[in-house]
Amino acid sequence: MKVNGKPYRTIWLGPDGKGVEIIDQTKFPHRFEIVRLKTVDDAAHAIKDMLVRGAPLIGATAAYGMALAMRADASDAGLERAYDRLYATRPTAVNLRWALDEMMRVLRPLGTQARAVAAYKRAAEICDEDVEINKAIGRHGLGIIRDIAERKAGERVNVLTHCNAGWLATVDWGTATAPIYMAHEAGIDIHVWVDETRPRNQGASLTAWELNQHGVPHTIIPDNTGGHLMQHGMVDLAIVGTDRTTANGDVANKIGTYLKALAAHDNNVPFYVALPSPTIDFGLHDGVREIPIEQRSGDEVAKMTGRTADGVIATVTIIPDGSPVANYAFDVTPARLVTGLITERGVIAANREAIRKAFPERG
Amino acid sequence: MKVNGKPYRTIWLGPDGKGVEIIDQTKFPHRFEIVRLKTVDDAAHAIKDMLVRGAPLIGATAAYGMALAMRADASDAGLERAYDRLYATRPTAVNLRWALDEMMRVLRPLGTQARAVAAYKRAAEICDEDVEINKAIGRHGLGIIRDIAERKAGERVNVLTHCNAGWLATVDWGTATAPIYMAHEAGIDIHVWVDETRPRNQGASLTAWELNQHGVPHTIIPDNTGGHLMQHGMVDLAIVGTDRTTANGDVANKIGTYLKALAAHDNNVPFYVALPSPTIDFGLHDGVREIPIEQRSGDEVAKMTGRTADGVIATVTIIPDGSPVANYAFDVTPARLVTGLITERGVIAANREAIRKAFPERG
Repeated sequence: MKVNGKPYRTIWLGPDGKGVEIIDQTKFPHRFEIVRLKTVDDAAHAIKDMLVRGAPLIGATAAYGMALAMRADASDAGLERAYDRLYATRPTAVNLRWALDEMMRVLRPLGTQARAVAAYKRAAEICDEDVEINKAIGRHGLGIIRDIAERKAGERVNVLTHCNAGWLATVDWGTATAPIYMAHEAGIDIHVWVDETRPRNQGASLTAWELNQHGVPHTIIPDNTGGHLMQHGMVDLAIVGTDRTTANGDVANKIGTYLKALAAHDNNVPFYVALPSPTIDFGLHDGVREIPIEQRSGDEVAKMTGRTADGVIATVTIIPDGSPVANYAFDVTPARLVTGLITERGVIAANREAIRKAFPERG
Repeated sequence: MKVNGKPYRTIWLGPDGKGVEIIDQTKFPHRFEIVRLKTVDDAAHAIKDMLVRGAPLIGATAAYGMALAMRADASDAGLERAYDRLYATRPTAVNLRWALDEMMRVLRPLGTQARAVAAYKRAAEICDEDVEINKAIGRHGLGIIRDIAERKAGERVNVLTHCNAGWLATVDWGTATAPIYMAHEAGIDIHVWVDETRPRNQGASLTAWELNQHGVPHTIIPDNTGGHLMQHGMVDLAIVGTDRTTANGDVANKIGTYLKALAAHDNNVPFYVALPSPTIDFGLHDGVREIPIEQRSGDEVAKMTGRTADGVIATVTIIPDGSPVANYAFDVTPARLVTGLITERGVIAANREAIRKAFPERG
């Protein structure tokens, strides 16, 4: 997608064909800074310190991290060391593990001479595969938006989204945002209500930033606002992403998603979840009971970072001394509140039968 | 309620029996500062610049403002001027208008000699009347909490609240908080989940502050969190305040209240609204359609104020340049989602018949 009018991915090969470039997402929304990764340690740092985030982008960065490692030391020991180094950065990230295993599968059988070239090739393919999945999600979601636009006879279509399932979380297009970008490209008059997504504000600092750069009309709203907008017919559909979907269609996503799904249901607003099918966990059958919810540092709630009137980045504490804080990172939206799952294989109903039918090789 | 172990109201007569003292609520939650009002202009400034807020406290401050005015100029012209001066501060505040009219009713028939003494007396009564209403709300709400505590056999009772309907918004006790303070005083093990209440954060900066000072166990949570807590049995009841309730029991309150009511309904958590009966508007019959929702400055969403590590109060911008913001201040919770209205006359069902029966002289 575009930044300052120029097309970007979130990760790409530098001009020398060796170094890998990324956008430092810790600087959002105040600065746009490109960082060059020259070594496996650079890649590990970028993942661990969240210069890159989002499952697909973490996977892609790990894959390129293996390629950078092979340039320096393509021995079996070098391969193992790079794997361990990168795996240790965020060991609970499923996509990180998948990408590293995939690189191992390709590289281990090869001679040391062939490994670097093969690693760059497979890393590039992993990036392209992610882009293709997101484009497929986008095309299927575009159909939904196009139907609504036709029903509204050209009146503006209003989409609500929560958190950032945008191109910044993937290699390009995003998941929840892919249908939005495609609708915008197709000339549909589309506007996005962006939940700020407390406490980490990924909606305001990432989703609003990327929509703004690409020129998609949008408005930032506090997380409290969506219900009111839906009561007044100001939301035509909601599209969110997911971190993990169960075999029966329950959806774990950023905390607060469930509240928006309830409001959508109460107001007959369609509520869609966009996801690449690998995030479906066929071993889970009751999201609310079975998906453990991460608790994060209370500092994310107690403090806010922004820029002062002088342009300085500063962090301020916004709660009283002595008040405890709880910070649950995700919640689970039961399948009964989900209108459909927008996957790379099409839009499917959020129930066991439809999911199994769409992915017979996995269910 | 207590601050640093000492009982306070939000407004009281100073040691000289003439000046009026208030807590400067614009400094919360970072500083506790008492301000003395010596003139009607001081009182007008306190209301206009929100050193005091909350309908009952605004009314009480206006009443004392009239008393301060009568000390300086008790003529008919002085009376009119004081009324106009105070009324202009926040002309849409119903309670402000009521308190000023009430002072006029008492003072106008009197001779100029008698007005100052009568004004102080009536202002003090208005304060005491507010305290009595809140204590009655507290006693009725305490019954609900006591029943839950008995069912839980002494296990901790968890209440969720949104925004600040606390003692800081009234003269003492608060509305939604009165049952909580009374339960705490009665030795019931009670804990409060405090929604931070973006964008103005009245939950984190006012409700958490007052609960903390009074020693009531509580935890600040992002507004996104309540649904998850309710799904997991971590909320026994919700109690919120209201700015305006319709004749059929629809409730306008701070934006986001509706989302919590939906989650409570979806999880069989009782959802109560505490209110002094004057906030019932018997002329309204459909809250979502009829209650106009104020839109406030986007700066409240775009900027956050807090204290830096050095203890300096600073304001930072937390959104990208160029992204628009919407800031709807209230939403409406339909009566079907409200378990009961806790009023000074008891707990009544949120429907036309029950409300009319409880207030036959008004309905």
